[in-house]
Amino acid sequence: MPHKSPIYSLNNVGDFSSTVSLHDPKSMPNACGFLWNSKMVLQMNCRGYAVSQFMQPEPAKFSHAPNLEQKTFVQPEHSYFSHHPGRFFYIKDHDNNELFSVPYEPMRVPLDTFEFKLGSSEISWHIEHLGLKITITVSLATDDCVERWSLQVNNHSTKARRLSIYPYFSIGYMSWMNQSAQFEPHLNAIVASSVTPYQKVEQYFKNKELKDQTFFAAQQVPDSWHANQLEFEGHGGLHNPDALGDETLGNVDARFQTPVAVMQYRADLAPQQETNYRFLFGPAKDHDEIERLIADYLPDAPAIKAQQQYQDYIAQGRGCLTLDSDVPALNDFVNHWLPRQMFYHGGVNRLSSDPQTRNYIQDNMGMCYIQPSVARQAFILTLSQQQRDGSMPDGILLHDDAQLKYINQVPHSDHCVWLPICLAAYLAETDDVELMNLAIPFSDCATPQSFIKHIELALDWLLGARDERGLSYIEQGDWCDPMNMVGYKGLGVSAWLSLATAYAINTWCELCEQYQLAVAPATLAYYRQQAIDINTAVNQHLYVGKWFARGITDENRVFGTEADEQGKIFLNPQSWAMLSGAASEQQQESMLDEIKRQLMTPFGVMMLAPSYTSMVEDIGRVTQKHPGVSENGSVYNHAAIFYAYSLYQQGQADLAFEVIEKMMPSLEQCLQTGQLPVYVPNYYRGAYHQYPKQAGRSSHLFNTGTISWLYRCIVEELCGLKGNSAGLLVNPKLPSQLNRLGGQRRFKGAVIDFNIVRCNKVGSIETRLDHQLISDNQLVGLKAGTNYRLDVLVPHHG
Amino acid sequence: MPHKSPIYSLNNVGDFSSTVSLHDPKSMPNACGFLWNSKMVLQMNCRGYAVSQFMQPEPAKFSHAPNLEQKTFVQPEHSYFSHHPGRFFYIKDHDNNELFSVPYEPMRVPLDTFEFKLGSSEISWHIEHLGLKITITVSLATDDCVERWSLQVNNHSTKARRLSIYPYFSIGYMSWMNQSAQFEPHLNAIVASSVTPYQKVEQYFKNKELKDQTFFAAQQVPDSWHANQLEFEGHGGLHNPDALGDETLGNVDARFQTPVAVMQYRADLAPQQETNYRFLFGPAKDHDEIERLIADYLPDAPAIKAQQQYQDYIAQGRGCLTLDSDVPALNDFVNHWLPRQMFYHGGVNRLSSDPQTRNYIQDNMGMCYIQPSVARQAFILTLSQQQRDGSMPDGILLHDDAQLKYINQVPHSDHCVWLPICLAAYLAETDDVELMNLAIPFSDCATPQSFIKHIELALDWLLGARDERGLSYIEQGDWCDPMNMVGYKGLGVSAWLSLATAYAINTWCELCEQYQLAVAPATLAYYRQQAIDINTAVNQHLYVGKWFARGITDENRVFGTEADEQGKIFLNPQSWAMLSGAASEQQQESMLDEIKRQLMTPFGVMMLAPSYTSMVEDIGRVTQKHPGVSENGSVYNHAAIFYAYSLYQQGQADLAFEVIEKMMPSLEQCLQTGQLPVYVPNYYRGAYHQYPKQAGRSSHLFNTGTISWLYRCIVEELCGLKGNSAGLLVNPKLPSQLNRLGGQRRFKGAVIDFNIVRCNKVGSIETRLDHQLISDNQLVGLKAGTNYRLDVLVPHHG
Repeated sequence: MPHKSPIYSLNNVGDFSSTVSLHDPKSMPNACGFLWNSKMVLQMNCRGYAVSQFMQPEPAKFSHAPNLEQKTFVQPEHSYFSHHPGRFFYIKDHDNNELFSVPYEPMRVPLDTFEFKLGSSEISWHIEHLGLKITITVSLATDDCVERWSLQVNNHSTKARRLSIYPYFSIGYMSWMNQSAQFEPHLNAIVASSVTPYQKVEQYFKNKELKDQTFFAAQQVPDSWHANQLEFEGHGGLHNPDALGDETLGNVDARFQTPVAVMQYRADLAPQQETNYRFLFGPAKDHDEIERLIADYLPDAPAIKAQQQYQDYIAQGRGCLTLDSDVPALNDFVNHWLPRQMFYHGGVNRLSSDPQTRNYIQDNMGMCYIQPSVARQAFILTLSQQQRDGSMPDGILLHDDAQLKYINQVPHSDHCVWLPICLAAYLAETDDVELMNLAIPFSDCATPQSFIKHIELALDWLLGARDERGLSYIEQGDWCDPMNMVGYKGLGVSAWLSLATAYAINTWCELCEQYQLAVAPATLAYYRQQAIDINTAVNQHLYVGKWFARGITDENRVFGTEADEQGKIFLNPQSWAMLSGAASEQQQESMLDEIKRQLMTPFGVMMLAPSYTSMVEDIGRVTQKHPGVSENGSVYNHAAIFYAYSLYQQGQADLAFEVIEKMMPSLEQCLQTGQLPVYVPNYYRGAYHQYPKQAGRSSHLFNTGTISWLYRCIVEELCGLKGNSAGLLVNPKLPSQLNRLGGQRRFKGAVIDFNIVRCNKVGSIETRLDHQLISDNQLVGLKAGTNYRLDVLVPHHG
Repeated sequence: MPHKSPIYSLNNVGDFSSTVSLHDPKSMPNACGFLWNSKMVLQMNCRGYAVSQFMQPEPAKFSHAPNLEQKTFVQPEHSYFSHHPGRFFYIKDHDNNELFSVPYEPMRVPLDTFEFKLGSSEISWHIEHLGLKITITVSLATDDCVERWSLQVNNHSTKARRLSIYPYFSIGYMSWMNQSAQFEPHLNAIVASSVTPYQKVEQYFKNKELKDQTFFAAQQVPDSWHANQLEFEGHGGLHNPDALGDETLGNVDARFQTPVAVMQYRADLAPQQETNYRFLFGPAKDHDEIERLIADYLPDAPAIKAQQQYQDYIAQGRGCLTLDSDVPALNDFVNHWLPRQMFYHGGVNRLSSDPQTRNYIQDNMGMCYIQPSVARQAFILTLSQQQRDGSMPDGILLHDDAQLKYINQVPHSDHCVWLPICLAAYLAETDDVELMNLAIPFSDCATPQSFIKHIELALDWLLGARDERGLSYIEQGDWCDPMNMVGYKGLGVSAWLSLATAYAINTWCELCEQYQLAVAPATLAYYRQQAIDINTAVNQHLYVGKWFARGITDENRVFGTEADEQGKIFLNPQSWAMLSGAASEQQQESMLDEIKRQLMTPFGVMMLAPSYTSMVEDIGRVTQKHPGVSENGSVYNHAAIFYAYSLYQQGQADLAFEVIEKMMPSLEQCLQTGQLPVYVPNYYRGAYHQYPKQAGRSSHLFNTGTISWLYRCIVEELCGLKGNSAGLLVNPKLPSQLNRLGGQRRFKGAVIDFNIVRCNKVGSIETRLDHQLISDNQLVGLKAGTNYRLDVLVPHHG
């Protein structure tokens, strides 16, 4: 049942055929979707601006801004401007010289109708203007770096039309060493050549392999072309380019000038006549590669095949759950967009060749629900880069030449906690106990040790990295990267990391017990005691007033308490105190009250409050970020989902669902978030009380550790269909607002159609599998390839 | 006698009051001028776009592009686009809602009259449109990083006008960590705050001192303001911003959004009434600094004083020569713009804290003609960074934290040749023999040695860095930075460097003899013989066919010969073979013919030809640059002036003057060069036969080693008024086209008004000082503070 609004709509809910449409290019100018394959990511906004990056194997661009851009990691709240790289089509009517551009930029002419339609494996625009019906689609190749574009123009009017159609694809400032572009008749493509700038001779041999050409290939021979950005634009500007005033484009090359790819197609269309074009746009090493890509993707048959292949590729990102609740937006998001986003994370690793260790592990927790074998390999790779002393590197190197870059050059203290925690999800989905005994080498020692031993070494390393109070050193940051000056002198400790250590230990012990791993009882007892000791220490030193503080700085200052003017309360220590068992029931009550009072907003729960407005030198870089942005008090969804997960562990189904509901991009909030419901953003702006006007804005950043936890919450907690060593335990945690929750759970090859219904006749959960009551709610002996029907009655609250 | 053209004009020729005007914003869109002080450089183009950088002490910007720009060294052929940083004023007439922008961008409305006027210490625009006379001026502070702007609007019409005037100053994308902006009433300024992005804690302590604020302060209180770029622009775009459609700007701040500084001034003007505004724009550390800058520069009295101070500062860049030829453009350029450009180089060191050693020395050769004491200090600093083994570093570090960056991380082999060569100019101007005995330490040895010893060590190092043939190893480049793979394996040699070594030795020996330096005759004889041996070796191995080759690669391949398809002939080996004495008269004749045939163009002499169009792996990066750009066969003026200087040494006055004439930016060529005659550009596009359409375009890069040599050519050769140990030798080298050359030469405090006249009655030069015939043309006993009259008769040619 699709939502309809003048702004956006959900369409065709069904397995991998869901789409989301935006019907107005003005109200959410930055609304965007993304496509990817293992080599590239394309972020398209509704107006035609694009951010396209590919791996060679380090991230690179082939469509640039008009100036020399800094190479950087993906930034939140990306900002657009008129010459931002884009893909546009100008359309001119020769009879009246009317000119407009689709999808919307750069002319911004109001269009009769506009639809920006995001599908799983295709982004399209459906536009009507001046009696023309225009359809633009873009998709990717599966194994190559190439954008596949098509354009259809239909004369919807009653008179014959004499049109020119001009694709305009930004190539931009490629290099100060060499950049040029021209049309290559034998390729029927505009090819821009460049030399990636460098100065050191050793770089030459590396750069030799780079794809330094950008090509724009067409299926049809153009009537004219233009490859020179500045001359194309001329005096009129991008919104009214000089070159379009002439009959033809003049076939102008670029010689150490900023290239562009523009072609002209004359199209005389009778009423109802239609014309179709197909284009490829991407990077290449040389003409031979362009030729190969053209043959593989441009003619009709290969193009159809390529789209099917790409659909199939994206379709692999199917999760283990199909929801059929009474909330279509929830179904739509959980069934399609959320697993799609997880699959993207698992496949592309945030377009990094050295993903942060914690991200890599958590992103692969998401893959446990899609392709557990991928997660398995990732966990093995991760442990193979662990050091013999148990410590984990800041990033996992994905290829031989990869290097730790950016934030991975700063030592963080938390990387050892993630694998035992995320492993729980893997084992729940796979029962792959065998992996636990697999022998894996270390980065600094070829002698392999079992997976179990690796985990123990990681825990031992964590236990060793504590001060005399038993609290974990934070070094130059824990989960919170920019909290880099709490402990840079070697003394500061982290409440969160202490609690996370306890939680990791407890999780590991539970796994050992549940899966009967080969760990001595004495060892487990030792670990259990350590976790208790940590919880005690945190309680002793860091429970201040009504909530847990965030840490103690090098200056021995406890922070994240009522005594602070800013950063009074942090979300993470509360969440993880609930997870680790540090928080008593009384404490929890008080913490939850304070979270509600200080951190909750209409857009979700903030990570800290109040946001810092100036540098605090014993806390660090987080306090210098803009208030309400990223870690400085945004609704940072990664922290929010930890909170939701911890609430579920405490049986707080209503509170947990409230957090999840606010996190999911929604129709109701989209004018404030500015984002379509196709991904969970890294954050929504926080600092709700400080900067209310900006609060709620989406970061438009679809890289986030949130999603695997969100999916886990929905599968294991909301639906309560969680695997374990025996099979599948049924324990739904329906919020008050839901009285029914149906769907399908796919579990180790078994297919379980479930229907959860609230019933005031039951006092506790009643589970029936194929109509047979399961007294302990534990489904055992499920067979791969078999379909089951699961009926669950859950009692009313109260 | 000013030139007048519809395009540009020279005005008011006189001491430091020359201006150059452009009367059309369309024909030369990139035409620009520059202002600087010791802390910053402002490059303003005629349309209002700006590149402003300041030193803190590394180069930084306070007015950014709308995206995260890469930090890089100054690039040639800088490209502009609509959102390029700029300084604009929108003007709206409330009675008819007519809107336009001055100076031209971003609206590009055709203006009734337009004048972009470049003065020594001020850049201004004088515009008439819609009955308004508008004057915009910008200048700098002398010791602070601040742009001082003023705007005058005069109602030139006969009716009362109700106007709004909106300064729009780009601030741009400052930082992904934090950026915001708002109006600060107590400062009457829009202040944008940011945090320079970083991730490592050690960087924090460095960044603490950075000027992370950008302020735009006004003398008058605005009626409204806008600090949010995207919202200001809205849907209309920069060429028609939404915010200007409203009565007021709405006082909108930026919160982690791209800042801008826009103010609104309502101005109701009676006929002939005028309104004046003054603004400051620049970086600051904090509000206190902004307050201080406002007090120092914004009120009337300080503003007038500041302009006088800045004029005085720029006026210090007066050269030692005032020309009064019959060619006004030559006079204008030599008297004003050329010494101004030299003074800029000497003062700002190309906005680098680690200028390349060869640049630093040659730029300071220019200072010998302006402030020899500055050159003296620079030479001493240079030698104090020499190593005890004689080698010179790739760059000279100008402050304690400076580091070798970019190209200075690549080892070049030529840095030792420059000081003996450039020293000749210093001694000619100063006779400062004392310096030669000054004891100076080394970078790796505190025990000082005399200047003489330093030079000898440099020469010895050069003599040692040769192969068994006696040719100089090129390592990863010589003067030609990107010729980095000729010798990177340790074998390749440079013809140019071999010849430059011989020339440096000969120059040094001549200085030793002329100034009777304390060098043993045997030492001199040894050096002389070494120079002869080098010349012999170069002749033996590198004179191939009709000209000198460029070198021999690691693969033992001689290159720069007829056998090459590209890079057949290089200019430098020919020029320096003439300087070093390697070229016989016969060889010279043949070389000059080939230079004329292969390298000469209407825009000057190319550095090599044909330009490379693809990588040659035993030559290197130069072959990857765009054909005709920079070292790959442009009219690279630095190489061209070496050629002119070498021609003068051979008495080729006509050929030399032809090179100089083509090098000087001129009225005749300006539509092709795109540049106004206020500086010598780094290059004009070459590859004349390969890419004729682009040939001649100016690099618009005013950093170049050309200028000190050009000035030296004019003083010592063209005018022939060259200092020596005895005094001043008179030996003009008038080209055929000049029959008279008058002017003033300032020499060690003496002022010599000279008049050189061609006379068919003399067979050789006849010199009269204050009417007394000087038989040997050698002026001795000139007294500081005394005015002389010098009359010179020169014979006709042939």
